[in-house]
Amino acid sequence: MSHYEIIGDWGTSRLRLFRLEEGRITARRQGPGIGAVGRHAETAFAEAAAPWLEAGMPSAIRLCGMVGARDGWVEAPYADCPADALAWRAAALRLDWRGVPLGIMAGLACLDADGVPDVMRGEETQIFGALARNPALATGRHLIVLPGTHNKWSVVEDGRITAFRTMPTGELFALLRDRSTLGAGIDTADPAQEAQGFAEGLARAGEGRLLSSLFAARAMRLRAGCSPDWALGYLSGLVIGCEIAEIRGTLGSADDILLIGDARLSARYAQALEAQGLSSHMLDGDACSLAGLGYLEN
Amino acid sequence: MSHYEIIGDWGTSRLRLFRLEEGRITARRQGPGIGAVGRHAETAFAEAAAPWLEAGMPSAIRLCGMVGARDGWVEAPYADCPADALAWRAAALRLDWRGVPLGIMAGLACLDADGVPDVMRGEETQIFGALARNPALATGRHLIVLPGTHNKWSVVEDGRITAFRTMPTGELFALLRDRSTLGAGIDTADPAQEAQGFAEGLARAGEGRLLSSLFAARAMRLRAGCSPDWALGYLSGLVIGCEIAEIRGTLGSADDILLIGDARLSARYAQALEAQGLSSHMLDGDACSLAGLGYLEN
Repeated sequence: MSHYEIIGDWGTSRLRLFRLEEGRITARRQGPGIGAVGRHAETAFAEAAAPWLEAGMPSAIRLCGMVGARDGWVEAPYADCPADALAWRAAALRLDWRGVPLGIMAGLACLDADGVPDVMRGEETQIFGALARNPALATGRHLIVLPGTHNKWSVVEDGRITAFRTMPTGELFALLRDRSTLGAGIDTADPAQEAQGFAEGLARAGEGRLLSSLFAARAMRLRAGCSPDWALGYLSGLVIGCEIAEIRGTLGSADDILLIGDARLSARYAQALEAQGLSSHMLDGDACSLAGLGYLEN
Repeated sequence: MSHYEIIGDWGTSRLRLFRLEEGRITARRQGPGIGAVGRHAETAFAEAAAPWLEAGMPSAIRLCGMVGARDGWVEAPYADCPADALAWRAAALRLDWRGVPLGIMAGLACLDADGVPDVMRGEETQIFGALARNPALATGRHLIVLPGTHNKWSVVEDGRITAFRTMPTGELFALLRDRSTLGAGIDTADPAQEAQGFAEGLARAGEGRLLSSLFAARAMRLRAGCSPDWALGYLSGLVIGCEIAEIRGTLGSADDILLIGDARLSARYAQALEAQGLSSHMLDGDACSLAGLGYLEN
């Protein structure tokens, strides 16, 4: 019998599986996201992991993300904020799958000051992983953002996630770029123009007025000779800049803001934060995921 | 020879033609919008007006809207703000079409305090028409909004349009409703739930934080038992409420805000304005268009 575990991050748009042997990643596999497989998640998992499973069953399986959503494999609970790593870990779902212990990480839920709820599934694993890897985060107030389609901004205070806010900025930008009269049909061909537009979008976003600044993407082309590339960069800078302006008004700020995720997108956020006088640094997303999934080891 | 004129409002999405005899509308015809016909506008006009033209040519043709855009029939100028009705009228394009005087109304252009441009084509005709019909608007400060896909908010001061701002709120809402993970796939079936969501979206929008309030459309369904209808109403109330909050911060307010356009949408805006303590009343859009086109009579 081989001694290995399967751990994985199974989000809406993709499945990433890691083969873990003696604490080290020895292989990776990918598969379709929960959004594509939904209730057929069990079959999709068996297919994605088939080469490993056929050679011998793992000693444990640990998964996080939308796999635990209502429309995923099995619904896992949400831990309520404020939550520390132990309370979150205790809320995980533990099952048996073909004789193997299967753990599905809990999501996280919170209520804002007006009693409006918010939820996450998957990002909490990266955040608690970041806390496990960075002892400096165990005390004080920190702001962590995971940029992507639905960005999760989280407040960490003395090692607990006390509040968070989902900002669907990435989805909104994709709609503006691909489907709107302001951005559709633009192919980015001139990175310098795009970068110039991005910087001007950030500058325009300072007061957080998104709706009244969108149309400039078109008017600047019509009346100020700006290029389509400029317009696409402007829209990107505008939505990200407005997102940060809104976060400052809701979750507040922090001395140093931590970015977890795709390097290129994180670099854009770092530039946008700097434009509003905020410093940031990036953490390795894969390392945070693995550290977060490590909470279920024992 | 018959004595009649053809006047029309030719926007991006539709052409509306009116047959005018002795100052009265005696017939109407519709045709495709400039967005659909573009450079073939002349042919499209001749087809839409064919039954009238075949019986005898008109004594004049007057058109407003995107017909005068760069990608329309012939490009008409923009009058610059601040503009009164006479300056705007003087900027109209006057041509000869098959021996008939053809007038195409000028658009309007402005620069905001940061030097960012904005433009309109067609709405200015309704606004100047509203001024012609309502002597009370000739003095003092007024705010006029034409709700639609790209809403135009205009400041009228002592009979001149001094500033305006395009808010693509209608387009954004359509993208959220039809294409986003927050709204796609929802069919409105329960007007009471939708109305409740709309009111709660308005309440949430008071501080103008659009991005940080969007995800509640999903989270309230997941965690607070809200219905899909509620979510759609919420998104509508949120974007309209945020639009008004932003306008107050950019163009300022006015004692009474005038709404020109579709009655159902205008009623929504009236409710949204009231939720922020602003009073409004509606003007008849067709009557304003006709009065505005009347400026070119002589």
